[in-house]
Amino acid sequence: MAEPAPYTVDHVAVLVRSIDDALGYYRDRLGLRVLSDETVAAVNARLLLLDGGATKLQLVEPTGPGPLQTHLETQGEGLHHLCFAVADIDAAIKQLAPDAGVAVNLGGRGRRTAFLPSAANNLRVELVENGPVRASQGEQ
Amino acid sequence: MAEPAPYTVDHVAVLVRSIDDALGYYRDRLGLRVLSDETVAAVNARLLLLDGGATKLQLVEPTGPGPLQTHLETQGEGLHHLCFAVADIDAAIKQLAPDAGVAVNLGGRGRRTAFLPSAANNLRVELVENGPVRASQGEQ
Repeated sequence: MAEPAPYTVDHVAVLVRSIDDALGYYRDRLGLRVLSDETVAAVNARLLLLDGGATKLQLVEPTGPGPLQTHLETQGEGLHHLCFAVADIDAAIKQLAPDAGVAVNLGGRGRRTAFLPSAANNLRVELVENGPVRASQGEQ
Repeated sequence: MAEPAPYTVDHVAVLVRSIDDALGYYRDRLGLRVLSDETVAAVNARLLLLDGGATKLQLVEPTGPGPLQTHLETQGEGLHHLCFAVADIDAAIKQLAPDAGVAVNLGGRGRRTAFLPSAANNLRVELVENGPVRASQGEQ
């Protein structure tokens, strides 16, 4: 096989019933900048692009009981969640889900993470706090 | 409301049965670099991060009949597909799906795009060819 082509993620797509309604979350609450907005006849869809910054692709393999294993057993493999990085996860939770009693845990790379309880457009949204990246877990 | 927090996409997660099997696609075929690989007890899962470059978040609202509208009607809103940018879409299709007769169309921003027919881990994968970005459609 030839050298792999240099792939990078160009975008992640979220299917919605109404972009106008969805913008209340993605643009107004998350503050993502709109890059383009157009209707493309070839796919019979309105496509709106938001600046997502730099991203990583995470593969998640359940290793024991929990919500991830349950999801895999009931709905199979596939795109699972989108994670937004924030400077202050406590402030972000207060802004996005103030009354939900969201639990903050230490997740991958020892960073503080939380899943928001109710997702816009059926999107499972995780938050992760920017900070030192470690290969193993530990107390913050 | 206070100024929105500066959110950016940290990662996109794909739920898989076996990371070892999945790496044959994401690392070996797409050539994505592995950033970390760990098992996190708090979520009972092995988490592997791949470098995804810079990304955009796309909102897709069907405006007429087609696969997007059908998907929305049958499976509802939510994460839909992941799009990889490539320098040469014809070469990438030849590498990833050589015998599938993949059609290349002009998609958003006037760029050449194609959906791959069979997706690893139920992931719908789109390819887009890097090139001049336009606000409206037209011939390349």
